[in-house]
Amino acid sequence: MATVAVIGAGMMGTALCTPIADAGNDVRLVGTHLDAEWVSAMKSTRVHPKLRMPLPDRVTPYAIDELDVAMVGADMAAVGVSSAGVRWAAETLSPHVRSGLPIIAVTKGLEEMAPGVLNVLPDVFLAALPEAQRPLVSPAAIGGPCIAGEIARRVQTCVVFTGRDRASLERLAAAFTTPYYNIRVSTDIVGVEVCAALKNAYAMAVGIGAGLHESSGGIAGPVAQHNWEAAVFAQACLEMDRLVRALGGDAAQVPHLAGAGDLLVTTSGGRSSRLGRLLGLGLTYPQAREQMAGDTLESADTVAVVGGAIPRMVERGVIASGSLPLMEHLHEIIVQGRRANMPFELFFRE
Amino acid sequence: MATVAVIGAGMMGTALCTPIADAGNDVRLVGTHLDAEWVSAMKSTRVHPKLRMPLPDRVTPYAIDELDVAMVGADMAAVGVSSAGVRWAAETLSPHVRSGLPIIAVTKGLEEMAPGVLNVLPDVFLAALPEAQRPLVSPAAIGGPCIAGEIARRVQTCVVFTGRDRASLERLAAAFTTPYYNIRVSTDIVGVEVCAALKNAYAMAVGIGAGLHESSGGIAGPVAQHNWEAAVFAQACLEMDRLVRALGGDAAQVPHLAGAGDLLVTTSGGRSSRLGRLLGLGLTYPQAREQMAGDTLESADTVAVVGGAIPRMVERGVIASGSLPLMEHLHEIIVQGRRANMPFELFFRE
Repeated sequence: MATVAVIGAGMMGTALCTPIADAGNDVRLVGTHLDAEWVSAMKSTRVHPKLRMPLPDRVTPYAIDELDVAMVGADMAAVGVSSAGVRWAAETLSPHVRSGLPIIAVTKGLEEMAPGVLNVLPDVFLAALPEAQRPLVSPAAIGGPCIAGEIARRVQTCVVFTGRDRASLERLAAAFTTPYYNIRVSTDIVGVEVCAALKNAYAMAVGIGAGLHESSGGIAGPVAQHNWEAAVFAQACLEMDRLVRALGGDAAQVPHLAGAGDLLVTTSGGRSSRLGRLLGLGLTYPQAREQMAGDTLESADTVAVVGGAIPRMVERGVIASGSLPLMEHLHEIIVQGRRANMPFELFFRE
Repeated sequence: MATVAVIGAGMMGTALCTPIADAGNDVRLVGTHLDAEWVSAMKSTRVHPKLRMPLPDRVTPYAIDELDVAMVGADMAAVGVSSAGVRWAAETLSPHVRSGLPIIAVTKGLEEMAPGVLNVLPDVFLAALPEAQRPLVSPAAIGGPCIAGEIARRVQTCVVFTGRDRASLERLAAAFTTPYYNIRVSTDIVGVEVCAALKNAYAMAVGIGAGLHESSGGIAGPVAQHNWEAAVFAQACLEMDRLVRALGGDAAQVPHLAGAGDLLVTTSGGRSSRLGRLLGLGLTYPQAREQMAGDTLESADTVAVVGGAIPRMVERGVIASGSLPLMEHLHEIIVQGRRANMPFELFFRE
């Protein structure tokens, strides 16, 4: 039984409290400035307004200005902010970092920290800590298919905890496991986290199929544009495989939870799919972006980062020119404003 | 421009005629005895009663007793029978087999031809030919995500033609390619065909999630049992990877068209998913089988063959004991009549 501080009271941060609490831990859920309204709602009603599920009894909500109190006696920290908040999370947690504190994040993304060098977010988090603190901790992350609304409803879920320190991962896994939250650990942080980041971008690509089908007058059903979608899904797996290898990870993560598993779950709804559908209906990205005003679109952010880095990765010799035609097309759509027109002729080439 | 005989006028055999004809070939579609009614309907209306699409002009339907006529001058043969019909197809085509005749099948399955030795169907086809004919041909097969009703409607589709003779594959691919039917070739017949066979079984497993969700009063939507389904999907990919390697194929097929791609498309509808749903609703296999009377259930056949062969494969040392817990559970459901109760605790173990 531990005391766990969860930073970030969005859908995923809040949902993660359910298995942590069910595993017998006391959970202190600390909202960021962006979550202020949700925290005050949870304080009065004990229901997250967007997740629409009651907090388990062992969860106590805190506002960001109560962080110091929430961190007193915390044995572990979980970070549930979006990718834009990773540096903020590191700086905010920094005063509370001590040797061996297990820290795990649900945040997904990649950053180009040097030209043509993509880094996983636990490394971005680490780099944002004061230099003296960096050797003290080994930030971990969660990959694998996990819809927030479903773990909050205790649906069977299998995830991967990844990081470089196996002992810390095992400790987190032992503390958070419940009969419905099945945790495997992997020290292949690059393999897991590259897949985790890419799935939003590639799920958006698969989602374009639904929009295309609708725009051609089709109705949902077993005969639609599933061949189209499955070909894009397979090309996405192939490009994940290439990118994982290029960045030094183990491609075994691709036909596994963090790769195909999380890609599948992300195609079943959510913002990435919705953005894809709008693009498939024929909207340009600026038009789609406008229709989804207010939504954080991590799929588009990942495309901008990864697609934008391709020329520099090719230059550095880490990937072959033309080996990521799907990501290149997504980059044309998101960054150059082109309409979706999937280049199947370039797919599945050696 | 070639003359292509297609044997089997079921949904897939008939649908395949559309790209073959659109590619400029003359197509002779020969129904089996089981397809007699459909052939006679197509002869009078030029519409397949189940596919509900008009035959392209270049397609001529033939009854099975007109096979000899249909084979006169045929440059290539395609086989569209179900797995139970592979030997029949070989014996029936045998009088027309000549050196170098390209033969390609859409049939998916595996057979245990010796204890603990699973063979792909092109090898079963070959073994069913008279011995003197076997060196004359190199039967090929089609893998990858392809719903019949969608290629008949010319939806963008990417498939893999596989066989051991690259020249024959290239010839077939060049003859059948259209702007919407994208063909890649692979000589890894074991990798492609093992994936192709397994996807029905594993898509059934994923389909159990929808039934479970329904039986617990859930409605379809972005929050359902997608975490459950995606974990099963990922475990399916992992077991495909293990089985492909065990049988001597290249695991690169798994995060690709024949593996994850075809598995995805098979979860979007069709008999394998429907069977899974019934099992998820709490029916035993005999009860579900009764509700689907008249349907060929290749998913159940594959589970019986592959799941049944596991003890002998373990004995032969080609796979590790306990490395296929999902397939073992499917075997318990299908062959031993047990109710579905997914053993997540056994999944994703080394």
